[in-house]
Amino acid sequence: MRDWHSKQAARTARIEAGSRFATGKLVTPADLTPFLETVLRPGDRVCLEGDNQKQADVIARALAAVDPARIHDLHMVQSGVVLPEHLDLFDSGIARRLDFSYSGPQSARIAKMLFGGTIELGAVHTYLELFARYFIDLTPQVALIAAVSADRDGNLYTGPNTEDTPTVVEATTFGNGLVIAQVGEIVDKVPRVDIPGDQVHFIVDAAKPFYVEPLFTRDPAAITETQILTAMLAIKGLYEPYGIRRLNHGIGFNTAAIELLLPTYGERLGLKGKVCTHWALNPHPTLIPAIEAGWVEQVHCFGSEVGMEDYLRARPDIFFTGPDGSLRSNRAFCQTAGLYACDMFIGSTLQIDLSGHSSTVTANRIAGFGGAPNMGSDARGRRHPSKPWLRAGAEADPDGPAPLRRGRKLVVQIGETFGDGNTPMFVERLSALDLAEKLDLDLAPVMVYADDVTHIVTEEGIANLLLCRTKDEREQAIRGVAGYTDIGRGRDKAMVERLRERRIIQRPQDLGIDPLDADRSLLAAHSIKDLMLASGGLYRPPSRFRNW
Amino acid sequence: MRDWHSKQAARTARIEAGSRFATGKLVTPADLTPFLETVLRPGDRVCLEGDNQKQADVIARALAAVDPARIHDLHMVQSGVVLPEHLDLFDSGIARRLDFSYSGPQSARIAKMLFGGTIELGAVHTYLELFARYFIDLTPQVALIAAVSADRDGNLYTGPNTEDTPTVVEATTFGNGLVIAQVGEIVDKVPRVDIPGDQVHFIVDAAKPFYVEPLFTRDPAAITETQILTAMLAIKGLYEPYGIRRLNHGIGFNTAAIELLLPTYGERLGLKGKVCTHWALNPHPTLIPAIEAGWVEQVHCFGSEVGMEDYLRARPDIFFTGPDGSLRSNRAFCQTAGLYACDMFIGSTLQIDLSGHSSTVTANRIAGFGGAPNMGSDARGRRHPSKPWLRAGAEADPDGPAPLRRGRKLVVQIGETFGDGNTPMFVERLSALDLAEKLDLDLAPVMVYADDVTHIVTEEGIANLLLCRTKDEREQAIRGVAGYTDIGRGRDKAMVERLRERRIIQRPQDLGIDPLDADRSLLAAHSIKDLMLASGGLYRPPSRFRNW
Repeated sequence: MRDWHSKQAARTARIEAGSRFATGKLVTPADLTPFLETVLRPGDRVCLEGDNQKQADVIARALAAVDPARIHDLHMVQSGVVLPEHLDLFDSGIARRLDFSYSGPQSARIAKMLFGGTIELGAVHTYLELFARYFIDLTPQVALIAAVSADRDGNLYTGPNTEDTPTVVEATTFGNGLVIAQVGEIVDKVPRVDIPGDQVHFIVDAAKPFYVEPLFTRDPAAITETQILTAMLAIKGLYEPYGIRRLNHGIGFNTAAIELLLPTYGERLGLKGKVCTHWALNPHPTLIPAIEAGWVEQVHCFGSEVGMEDYLRARPDIFFTGPDGSLRSNRAFCQTAGLYACDMFIGSTLQIDLSGHSSTVTANRIAGFGGAPNMGSDARGRRHPSKPWLRAGAEADPDGPAPLRRGRKLVVQIGETFGDGNTPMFVERLSALDLAEKLDLDLAPVMVYADDVTHIVTEEGIANLLLCRTKDEREQAIRGVAGYTDIGRGRDKAMVERLRERRIIQRPQDLGIDPLDADRSLLAAHSIKDLMLASGGLYRPPSRFRNW
Repeated sequence: MRDWHSKQAARTARIEAGSRFATGKLVTPADLTPFLETVLRPGDRVCLEGDNQKQADVIARALAAVDPARIHDLHMVQSGVVLPEHLDLFDSGIARRLDFSYSGPQSARIAKMLFGGTIELGAVHTYLELFARYFIDLTPQVALIAAVSADRDGNLYTGPNTEDTPTVVEATTFGNGLVIAQVGEIVDKVPRVDIPGDQVHFIVDAAKPFYVEPLFTRDPAAITETQILTAMLAIKGLYEPYGIRRLNHGIGFNTAAIELLLPTYGERLGLKGKVCTHWALNPHPTLIPAIEAGWVEQVHCFGSEVGMEDYLRARPDIFFTGPDGSLRSNRAFCQTAGLYACDMFIGSTLQIDLSGHSSTVTANRIAGFGGAPNMGSDARGRRHPSKPWLRAGAEADPDGPAPLRRGRKLVVQIGETFGDGNTPMFVERLSALDLAEKLDLDLAPVMVYADDVTHIVTEEGIANLLLCRTKDEREQAIRGVAGYTDIGRGRDKAMVERLRERRIIQRPQDLGIDPLDADRSLLAAHSIKDLMLASGGLYRPPSRFRNW
C-alpha cells in the first residue's frame, strides 16, 4: 500500500520539531538558526524570498549560519539572488543547486561561483516562468518569506511590497510544504490580511522592517540630453503613431526621460489621454509629474518603491490599494498583465547584436533576467485586438489575410549608441554566447530575442524591424541607428538610405525633431527634489537621493 | 483640485446604500434583487463569476431580475458565459457589452445574440488574457462571486473549486471596487480562508451550494477504437521519443484514451516515471488508474471536478490541498503553469485548415476559447531548457546556432479525420472566417494558430509540422494524415511518400503499431464504474454518469 500522505506527514514532523523553539507559531528570534536546523532537511527545495525588491534578510542571515553538517545541498528556488547571504549559502555547502530570475547586485559574484562550480545551475528564468514552475516541478518544500507584520494566528500584512509573497506561499503551503515568515512586528490585528494565517506555519519577530532596495528611482538630474532626444523620438515616432495606451516601461534613464517628457513635450503634441493611460509598472517616482498632470488613469504594480508609500496612499484612483489604504502590489499578476494586456514594452539593454538579439550579460556578470523576457515577448495566446497591436501585425505581414493575421506587441529597445563608460551598445557577438560556452549552457542567456524586438531607438533614429523583409534589411536597419560604433560604421550607406526612404529608419529630422531642441528644460522635473515638490511633499525620497 | 479618491468614495456610497438590506455584511437573501439595484450603477463593469465550472447562479438569477430602467448597459467581464441568465441580462438591456473567454453551453444562443446586435462584443479571450486585463483596462467595479461558505467577517471558503475567485477578487477589491459573494452557508469558522474577509464587502446566504458542471468527466465506455489508436500513436510517436514529463491535456475522448492507456500500453513500453509525471490539469477521473499505478508525481489544477472531492482529499501527495484537506485549485496559476512550465499541450479541435490553423467555431456556434490559446501557444518568454523543448526547437531550425536557438513547446492537435456526426476535421476554410466576416471582426476566432501547432495526430498517423521546410510541405503533411476527407483525398501522393521517408509523416506501422491492436482491452478502465473501483470507491461519479 502506497502512502499518499508523505508530504503532509513530513510537514507535520517539521512543525512538531520546530514547535520546540516556538510559542504557538511565534519562533523565539534568538533561536532562529537552531530552529531552521530542526525544520529543514538536507536536499530540501527552499524558496528564500528573495524578490526583486524586498528581502527576508533576517532569515537569510540565520540560514547562512546553520551547520552545513546538518543542513546541506539545499536546492534554492527564488526569484532574487540579491543579498551576500544568498550566495554565502553555496560557499558553505548549505545550498548546492540554484534556480532563479534576477541577481543584479550579486551579478559578478554569482558569475564567479558558477564558473568555479560552487553553484550548480538549474536555469535562469523570467519571474513568471519561475512562478509557473513552483506549481509544476519546482514546488518548494519550505518557503522563508517576509512581511511587515503578523498577528498571533499568522495572518500577514505585507504592506505595499506584497510582490511575490502570495505566489510563493500558495505554491508551498498548498503543496503541503512549510511556510515561515519574518515580520517587522507582531500586532493584535493586522491592517489588512495579505496572507491568511492558516497558510503560515511559523512567524519570527525580526523587530525591524525587512530590507528593501529602491530599485526604480532615477534622478532626473542625471538624465542626459541624448536620453531626452531618444525620449522625444520614442514619443513622436512610436507612442503617437501607434497610439500606445497600455504599456510597461523597463528601468533606466531613457524611459525615465519619456515619463518626464509626457507633461511637456507630450502635452505639446496633444497626446494627453491618447497615450500612456494604463500601466503595468512599478511606482516610478519619475511618473509623478505625468500623474499629477492627469495623464494616467491606472497603474498596476509589481512591487512598491521606497519613499513612494504616502504618495501611493494618496492616489487610490490611480493605484491598486487595500482597505488599509496602502498599495497592494502583486508581481505574478502584474507580469501577467505585462504579457497579455499591454501593447508595448520598452526598455534598455547592454548589448544588441546584428540580428537584434539583446542581452545584459557581460563576460563576468550574470544579472539574470527579471521580467524583461516575459514582457518583452509577443504573447501568442493573445486573442483581443487593439489598434497598436493590429497595426504592428499588419506592418510585419502586409500581405497576410487580415482576419487570420495576428497583431504584434511592440517590443522596443531604447538606448544611446555608446552606453556607460563609452561601451558600444551594438556588438558583433553577444557576451552571452561566451558565457554559454564557458558554462556549457544549452541556451545563451538572451534577454529579448531578435524575433520579438520590433523597434530600436537610439539618438540616431528609430529602426522599425517590423518593416524589414530580409535578414539583410534587418541588419542594415540595425547598423543604420548604431551611430559611430563599429557596427554603425560598417553600414551599407546606400541601403540605409533606401531603408530611410521606406521609413524603416526614421531620423530625428524625418519626425520633425531638431536634436538641438532636446534640452533639459523639457523635463517636467529636474531633480529628485522637483519630484518631491510635484507630489505635494508626499513622495519622500530615500536619503541617498537627497542633496538638500 | 482633482479628487483622487473618487473610486473609494463610490465604493463607500455603494456600501452605505447596500447596508440597508444587510445585517453587517450579510444581505437578506429575499432582498438580493433590490440590494443589487441599490449597489449597482448603469454602465458598471461587472464580473459575474462565471468560471469554467462553478457559477454564482443565485446572484445571476437575482441580477437578471433587476429593473432595467434602473440598472442597464452593464459591461460584463467574466470568463464563463454559461447560464441562461448570463445572456438574459443582454436580452433585457441590463447588460450591453461583453468581454469573455468561454461560452460552451450557450454557444448557439450567444452567436445569435451577437449576430442580432443584442450583445456588443468586446473580445473573446483566453482565460489568462482576460485575467490580465482585469488589472489594466477591464478592472471590474463590482464582482459577484461564489464560495462554499463564509463566516460573519466575510472570510470565504471556496472548497476545491477555488478557480478564478482569488484573481477576480484581487483585481476588484484592490481596484477599489465592490465584492459581493454568494455562499452555500454561513459558519462560525471557515475550514480554510481562501479569500480574506477584508476583501469582501457583502455576503448572501444562498442556503445551497453554487452550481457546478462536471465538464471534465469522460466515460471510458464511450471511447472508440479509433481514439485508442490515436492514443497509441501519441504515446509511442510523441510522449516516448520526446520524453514528455510536464504537460497539459485538453478535454476530450482522445486525451482520455491516452490517460487510460498509460498503465497498460505505456507500462508495456517501459515509460513509467519517464513521461507524464507532472501535470497542469483538472482532476480528470480518467487519470485515476495512472495515478493509482504510480505514474503521476504531481498535478496542479485549474478547478475541481464533480465527484472527485474525496479522491483528491485522499491523495495529497499528488494534488495541491489546503489545511482543511480539500483541493486548492487556482485557474490563474495553473494557466501560467500551462504556459511556462509545460513542454506539451495536446487537445482536440473541430476544424483544421490546410495551414494548420484550428478552431472550434462553427457557422452558428461560438464556444469561446477557454484555456487552449494560452496553453497551445509557444511561450516566447521562456528561458529554461528541457529535453523535449530543445529537441522540438532543433527540429524546427536544424541549422540555427545552438545557444541562440530557442526550444519549442509541443502543441499537438489530436482527433479522428471524421469527427462527431461524420463531420470532417480537415477543411479548406475555417468557419471562423465566415464568423469574422459576419460580425466584422478584426480577428477570426482561431483557437490555435498554425505557427504554434507542432504535430497533428489522426488514426492515419502523425504529421510533424516542425520538420516541414516549406508551405507546400506543410500542406501535404496535413493532407497526408487527413484520411478520406476531401482534404486527405486531395493529397499529392508522391510528395506524401517523400514526407514519410523523412519521418515528417509517420504511419502506425512506421511506429510498429498494428491498428488491429487498438483494442478496448487496452483501456485501464472500461466504464465510469471501473474508475470508481480504481479509486477504491473514493471517486463518486455524478448520477448522470451512473448506470448501475
